[in-house]
Amino acid sequence: MTVSKNSGNLVEHLLAGDRRAAARLITMVENETDDHHEIMRRIYPNTGHAMILGVTGAAGVGKSSLTDHVIGKLREQGKTVGVVLVDPSSPFTGGAFLGDRIRLQRHARDEGVFIRSMASRGYLGGLSRATYDVIRIIEAMGRDVIIVETLGAGQDEIDVIHIAQTCLLVVTPGMGDDIQAMKAGLMEVAHIVVLNKADLEGTDTCLRHLQATMDVARFDEGAWVPRIVATVSVASKREHIQGLDELMAAIAEHQEYLHKNEAIDRVKFQRIEQELGLIFKDALQKLVLKGLKGTGKKKKYIQKIMEGKSDPYSVVEEVMKTYILSREERQT
Amino acid sequence: MTVSKNSGNLVEHLLAGDRRAAARLITMVENETDDHHEIMRRIYPNTGHAMILGVTGAAGVGKSSLTDHVIGKLREQGKTVGVVLVDPSSPFTGGAFLGDRIRLQRHARDEGVFIRSMASRGYLGGLSRATYDVIRIIEAMGRDVIIVETLGAGQDEIDVIHIAQTCLLVVTPGMGDDIQAMKAGLMEVAHIVVLNKADLEGTDTCLRHLQATMDVARFDEGAWVPRIVATVSVASKREHIQGLDELMAAIAEHQEYLHKNEAIDRVKFQRIEQELGLIFKDALQKLVLKGLKGTGKKKKYIQKIMEGKSDPYSVVEEVMKTYILSREERQT
Repeated sequence: MTVSKNSGNLVEHLLAGDRRAAARLITMVENETDDHHEIMRRIYPNTGHAMILGVTGAAGVGKSSLTDHVIGKLREQGKTVGVVLVDPSSPFTGGAFLGDRIRLQRHARDEGVFIRSMASRGYLGGLSRATYDVIRIIEAMGRDVIIVETLGAGQDEIDVIHIAQTCLLVVTPGMGDDIQAMKAGLMEVAHIVVLNKADLEGTDTCLRHLQATMDVARFDEGAWVPRIVATVSVASKREHIQGLDELMAAIAEHQEYLHKNEAIDRVKFQRIEQELGLIFKDALQKLVLKGLKGTGKKKKYIQKIMEGKSDPYSVVEEVMKTYILSREERQT
Repeated sequence: MTVSKNSGNLVEHLLAGDRRAAARLITMVENETDDHHEIMRRIYPNTGHAMILGVTGAAGVGKSSLTDHVIGKLREQGKTVGVVLVDPSSPFTGGAFLGDRIRLQRHARDEGVFIRSMASRGYLGGLSRATYDVIRIIEAMGRDVIIVETLGAGQDEIDVIHIAQTCLLVVTPGMGDDIQAMKAGLMEVAHIVVLNKADLEGTDTCLRHLQATMDVARFDEGAWVPRIVATVSVASKREHIQGLDELMAAIAEHQEYLHKNEAIDRVKFQRIEQELGLIFKDALQKLVLKGLKGTGKKKKYIQKIMEGKSDPYSVVEEVMKTYILSREERQT
């Protein structure tokens, strides 16, 4: 399938930095239009150069407010920014989280900031193929920095590690036991731990805990040791946030580390690996669904299982044999 | 592949209610031993008769404590119980949650209670195929009731709805805005909303909010209208929990509703549908991995993409053509 003239033009406009073209292409990719694959093929070679920053953490720790300030600093440095806000698809948290996004609206009129909110609606949770595509599209606009913000609740915050070059984990002193709990995983995922709301009670204890965790952990020689940065972001004083300069310095330092050690290539490799996996699964699923669609067979299979005459493992084996076979199998 | 003599014996012991056989089979299924599919095929026809109760809600709302009391009541009624505690695989929450499980230990010496804790380690989050298998195994032991407890954080609590016949959503008054946020999804997922810790400040407001939500919602004639039950569970007074009888009554009422309206068949249908999907995905993934394994091709593909000479969509198309083809294609 070739790209239609219309979407071909859109891609050209996208590459020239056009926001409206970006918004339209994102919608097309989310809706999986017919030329979706062709669009992505044209976009891909124009990506891979942005700095990608991940921001994750539990609800209520102040991720959006922090992101807002980081955007401000990046803009001061003359950098263009793209932001992807990933909301969980869960009906339990959906609404409130979207509400948070309003805080980022002060950048809404800034042409240098492109914000897109999307649901993490992977078939089984986690970031969807669409999320990965959207990040590529925003990169192709020529943005210098892409911020991917996810709610630290499940698979999302692990997936964001596969995309982000530098990953911030935002915590608050109030989390107490939770911080103890995350110790084990902390080192693996966060390059920078941001202790936000560091004016709350328990800040000192929390900082000590975090520091002790770092001290106990063993790092390979030359490995990145996660930085801890304390910040105080006051909602009423938008201009002011304590610790922001330290945070920006830590981000710059980690980026420098990545590029000096060619670790950046490993991160880029992982990102593509993740994308490949998701696109594969989409393709395979479609192949099977195409075979089953409209035949009413699925219902019959399920009824047979309910009656105790079959089981899912036998059904899957049968369907695989019917609709899919490997080249290997064909040659025999 | 046929089931080995050893696992064949284990299945026989399982069907006789043997706990050790259950534990061993669960481990085998989690580890995907060679005869895993055969084991599940033998187990399947012996399942589908238990009452399945889902318990979900955010961290800290007191799910485990509530589950503990519900188990106690079920045992008083002479029912045998199986419990599956699903912990998120996320490194951020892992530890603390497992700690909660200790509360259920008072049932550890009761032969009538079989408890299994497992990680939700679906490839993309959400409940894994293994979780579904484990529930079937515990059913095959002949347990009257299976309780599936998940942390309401992401896809897990949505998935539990597909398994559970009666689903409890546990909330606390302190959640304030969060409850507002979950309003939209509330009706879809919870059959019974348990307002736990109903001695805390804000209980009345919270109850009013919940009730107002129910009043505003439109239900089809004859449809189940979610019940709201307030409970106060005091950790120090293990024997006593206010509202427990009302909760048990609501559960019984919902079960009666399901069986009277044959809605139970729809729930059982959905469960199998979900299982089929997961087993499919596993099978497809293995097929592709088998094709790529050890050839070093994946690495080469990724490098080509990194160099801007290809893109994931083109790679997937190529691999699909090389390793997999549909019957349709073969016939042409």
